[in-house]
Amino acid sequence: YRSINHRVDSKSLWLYRWYYSRTCQWILSLTITVILALAFIEKPSSLTVTSDVRYRLPAWNPPCGLTESIELLCFLVFMVDVSVKSYLVGWEEFWKNKWLMAYILTLIVSLTDWIVSLSFLCTEDVRVRRILRPFFLLQNSSMMKKTLKSINSTLPEMASVVLLLAVHLSLFTMFAMLLFARTKDGQQDKEWMVYFRNLPDSLTSLLVLLTTANNPDVMIPAYSKNRAYSIFFILFTVLGNLFLMNLLTAIIYNQFRGYLLKSVQSSLFRRRLGIRAAFEVLSSLKEAPANAQQSYVDVGALQQVLQKVEMDSRCKQAITRSLKVCSCDQLSAAQFQKLFEELDKDAIRQHPPSPDYQSRFMQKMQFAFGHPYFGYLGNVVALANIVSICVVLVMDADKQPSERDDFFLGAINCFFILYYLLEMLLKILAMGLKRYLSYPSNRFDGLLTVILLVLEIATFAVYGFPHPGWRPEFIGLLSLWDMVRLVNMLIVFRFLRIIPNMKFMALVVTTLLDLVKNLRAFAGILVVVFYAFAITGIMLFKGAVISMYIKKVVVLSFKEKCGFMGLFCYFQADVTYCLLYLLSLNLICRWAKIYFVAWWLISSVIWVNLFVALLLENFIHKWDRRCHREPLSDIEYQRTVELMFRDVLEEPTEEELMEKLHQHPHLQLCR
Amino acid sequence: YRSINHRVDSKSLWLYRWYYSRTCQWILSLTITVILALAFIEKPSSLTVTSDVRYRLPAWNPPCGLTESIELLCFLVFMVDVSVKSYLVGWEEFWKNKWLMAYILTLIVSLTDWIVSLSFLCTEDVRVRRILRPFFLLQNSSMMKKTLKSINSTLPEMASVVLLLAVHLSLFTMFAMLLFARTKDGQQDKEWMVYFRNLPDSLTSLLVLLTTANNPDVMIPAYSKNRAYSIFFILFTVLGNLFLMNLLTAIIYNQFRGYLLKSVQSSLFRRRLGIRAAFEVLSSLKEAPANAQQSYVDVGALQQVLQKVEMDSRCKQAITRSLKVCSCDQLSAAQFQKLFEELDKDAIRQHPPSPDYQSRFMQKMQFAFGHPYFGYLGNVVALANIVSICVVLVMDADKQPSERDDFFLGAINCFFILYYLLEMLLKILAMGLKRYLSYPSNRFDGLLTVILLVLEIATFAVYGFPHPGWRPEFIGLLSLWDMVRLVNMLIVFRFLRIIPNMKFMALVVTTLLDLVKNLRAFAGILVVVFYAFAITGIMLFKGAVISMYIKKVVVLSFKEKCGFMGLFCYFQADVTYCLLYLLSLNLICRWAKIYFVAWWLISSVIWVNLFVALLLENFIHKWDRRCHREPLSDIEYQRTVELMFRDVLEEPTEEELMEKLHQHPHLQLCR
Repeated sequence: YRSINHRVDSKSLWLYRWYYSRTCQWILSLTITVILALAFIEKPSSLTVTSDVRYRLPAWNPPCGLTESIELLCFLVFMVDVSVKSYLVGWEEFWKNKWLMAYILTLIVSLTDWIVSLSFLCTEDVRVRRILRPFFLLQNSSMMKKTLKSINSTLPEMASVVLLLAVHLSLFTMFAMLLFARTKDGQQDKEWMVYFRNLPDSLTSLLVLLTTANNPDVMIPAYSKNRAYSIFFILFTVLGNLFLMNLLTAIIYNQFRGYLLKSVQSSLFRRRLGIRAAFEVLSSLKEAPANAQQSYVDVGALQQVLQKVEMDSRCKQAITRSLKVCSCDQLSAAQFQKLFEELDKDAIRQHPPSPDYQSRFMQKMQFAFGHPYFGYLGNVVALANIVSICVVLVMDADKQPSERDDFFLGAINCFFILYYLLEMLLKILAMGLKRYLSYPSNRFDGLLTVILLVLEIATFAVYGFPHPGWRPEFIGLLSLWDMVRLVNMLIVFRFLRIIPNMKFMALVVTTLLDLVKNLRAFAGILVVVFYAFAITGIMLFKGAVISMYIKKVVVLSFKEKCGFMGLFCYFQADVTYCLLYLLSLNLICRWAKIYFVAWWLISSVIWVNLFVALLLENFIHKWDRRCHREPLSDIEYQRTVELMFRDVLEEPTEEELMEKLHQHPHLQLCR
Repeated sequence: YRSINHRVDSKSLWLYRWYYSRTCQWILSLTITVILALAFIEKPSSLTVTSDVRYRLPAWNPPCGLTESIELLCFLVFMVDVSVKSYLVGWEEFWKNKWLMAYILTLIVSLTDWIVSLSFLCTEDVRVRRILRPFFLLQNSSMMKKTLKSINSTLPEMASVVLLLAVHLSLFTMFAMLLFARTKDGQQDKEWMVYFRNLPDSLTSLLVLLTTANNPDVMIPAYSKNRAYSIFFILFTVLGNLFLMNLLTAIIYNQFRGYLLKSVQSSLFRRRLGIRAAFEVLSSLKEAPANAQQSYVDVGALQQVLQKVEMDSRCKQAITRSLKVCSCDQLSAAQFQKLFEELDKDAIRQHPPSPDYQSRFMQKMQFAFGHPYFGYLGNVVALANIVSICVVLVMDADKQPSERDDFFLGAINCFFILYYLLEMLLKILAMGLKRYLSYPSNRFDGLLTVILLVLEIATFAVYGFPHPGWRPEFIGLLSLWDMVRLVNMLIVFRFLRIIPNMKFMALVVTTLLDLVKNLRAFAGILVVVFYAFAITGIMLFKGAVISMYIKKVVVLSFKEKCGFMGLFCYFQADVTYCLLYLLSLNLICRWAKIYFVAWWLISSVIWVNLFVALLLENFIHKWDRRCHREPLSDIEYQRTVELMFRDVLEEPTEEELMEKLHQHPHLQLCR
């Protein structure tokens, strides 16, 4: 599915293949991961087990030069990467490609910053290159670049709604300041004192109300003075939260409705173009008769090429097979294209057959334990296990740890784990090992059963068999109680195997899994943004300047539905410092406010809405498909986005393909 | 657009017309309003100005028999209503109509309860009829009934997602109980102590986490012990809040996608059916020639009928006009149908022309002040006014009320109001009064300007003209400061006139206005549900049994984004009692929990999602339309839902109509 706009002489082709080989791409990904992970061990980091300042040890501080040398290595890899890429696209294309230029610029800035950093012996405060780091992640993924482009095209409309929100906010702020003005009677103006003292305060109060964080608190003083004041707050919330915020969702959804389809369409176009280009190249090798209107490809030559090409072995087999079936000597463009449609088809995974047993007894066994009802029985037993654990938990809830008797739970778990083992063995007996392993649900089951068994045997080996009053002392790595807890958690986790058995749940879960696949690009962009924000935050509020105020904002922000969690994790350590620095808060406050509002807008408002839009798109598509045709239950397709849109995709026409090919910068076709 | 399945003999028709006359329907609506409003003055109500128990006076307690006699009057009206309705649909139809039967049942139950209530002299505790009251609102609106039906059809799928949520919640609860178990070291298990002490506590903690109300608090103790614990909470929030909750949105949106279209389609069908029935009746009046294949309607007869029919005078004129144009004697069914299409058309409102002035000076004036730029100048001046008010507010923010000088603001406002007056007068001069008033934005402008002028004159009459140090004593109804504040608020409000000038904003605002129209049915159902909940709440938690716990739940609930506000307003009064009744909380707690969870599910989860679905539907439709054709800016259509869907609606076929007509229970057609 890659673009074919690269040099095509044989040396460049070799380089191209080498560059896109698995090893090279893997090295590149590793480098990106390493450079991003550096932030966790670099100096102002706070990666400790506990986040409580009272208990935690000082974080490990790497000596100057260690992280820097790792960084230099990474930069070298990136420099090789960018030069290969630039060489491959060629000089003319390079000037058109903004991403490549930005890549080079970033590298130059980073290297300069690195040199400055070394010359100050790592004591300088501002490190620009850290904020630039996520760019390396961004430029390496074509999906992310594409997503960014379509987010970019949504921005103008989002900006209008955000502008509308701003107008809404400022008008209501003025109303509020006029409504809750300072009265002559000093006792009655609690509202004014706390929330609407001056313009920035009022704006903040209402902005936080928009995030619903201070929802009842902000109106309580006014409300207890006169109930009618609540009208103001209700009006503000309904207009802002219910209408404008949801309007943002509607706009983003509207923009993204065609997004998936369009991206899949362009991938298809690129693949068809690549195949067509191969056809043209192959056909131009042979001296065509002068009067031939159409070009043809020799079957023999194609077979030779096929031997050398690296591709999925299944596809290769399928293509050679159909080449033999075809039995003609020459292939036209259409036939050639059709031949490679095999690439689009997904593997239809057939489960291997069950073993054929000779004895009647074994056949009966096979029928009994291969039957779906046996699976249902397993689910019922798993449910019973969950219920029993639940009962024990409720009973033990108020007991002191010293009074707790682990015998009952131990015995029950022992029994259930034996049943699980038996179930697994019987299923393997009935289906044969290969067929058993070909079902993902069985793999999940089997793996957990084996782990449970190992844990149980380990428990018995260390603490002996359960008996009443089984409360041994702490021995070895984990206490008995921890072992039992771990086993129980695994049992609860194993209970998830019931999901595929419930039709609606299965639909939901497959939707979610598909979504996760499609969301990778979005998640990547979120990581990029988050990383930049976290680094900026560390630089802005480092150490001494964290104030009580930020803690308040952070805590308030968390009432919001999403996203802040991560930022929080990162900040929590430094925020607890704040009690010590109550004084120096005035200047930094304003910056913190702007910083957090920006973060709220990006993470909570925009990203969540993007997520909702994508979920709606995915789910509605899936739902429509489900209504149209019942899925074949026996054959499991490997679901891909292409498959999902198979019926709505348009094939590119011959003319479009040829036009695009003639625009190719490096490929000079004979005609 | 009403159904035509009613009796058609002339007496019934008279009754039918009388029943659907404006007066009768108005009386019915008034009765419903009165009976619903009774809750505000009935006994356990708390309608006082302040909600603070320390200051408020005891609420007015109506004597026994007053509200009861009002109720009886209402019941009598309802009884007349139900009997007329039942008579009109006829006996056979009555048995099929579940709404009518439920109506009668409700009336019987209410009356019985009323009698019981009187025989106890209003001292009984449980009043069932109060919970039943919103039913009267529900049954009177056909839109609400229809909406309820389609919500009902979405319920199974919503139930599956709610089930999924429940499974998610219970599995995570078990995980949490195993993870945050009581440790032997008593100091380290803060998490267990506060949030996961036993099963109901854990369930509540996680449920509240699902509403994001206790978002950072719940994880702080575990997080400060070990950062890795946050993974559990992040996983729970992402799965529950981001995926499952949004899935609910997707499902509801998916169900409601066709909702608007379907409802408009069935309205159209009913109208066509009614016209066809009229045609059949008219054509059967005349003795048809035996060999006539098609039936015809006499134009003369039609004109006679038209004279007597009550309809919009504009439509009547249009129909008679086209009848005259037609000039034929007899009309076929298709022609007849076409004739009445006039009813579907909306009035194309043409603004009256500007006056023609003779003098050149006046013409120049007219050109200058009728020009759009003059309007823009007005907007700029309004903006300047807002900015000046803002500046004064910021400057006065920290001053004591006694130091405040009202001169500056008074002088500025005086100047701006004079400008507004001048603008209004000049516009009237340029456009003529009629044309001026035909624009809604001008009406809005003019009204506010007049009010501002009156206020300003009143201020000057009472307090004299502004001068430096203008701080007079309190005279009359409002202090000077209050007057100025009121004027300022009106000026801020007047600033909204800029909205139609910004294209995107205008689109958004019209979408919102449309939405409000379409939402009436939803809002009605919300009122019904809310009313029932509030009454149940009052009955459940009346007076003494309100506990601290409920206050906590209420406050937590309010962190949620919507809906609770109203319930809150209703409860706040009784909730502040709670401090007095800390002891008797155990039994009621569980009920309160269930009650609030139910309320959260209905108001916040389901209703908000319905709202989002409707907004998406409306907005996307509108957006598509805007892209297809630019709206004609000169002619303002009265936008209706029908107009919006004009191009996608299907006309019902002749056969469908006739089949439906033959099923009519009362209309026996000759053929």
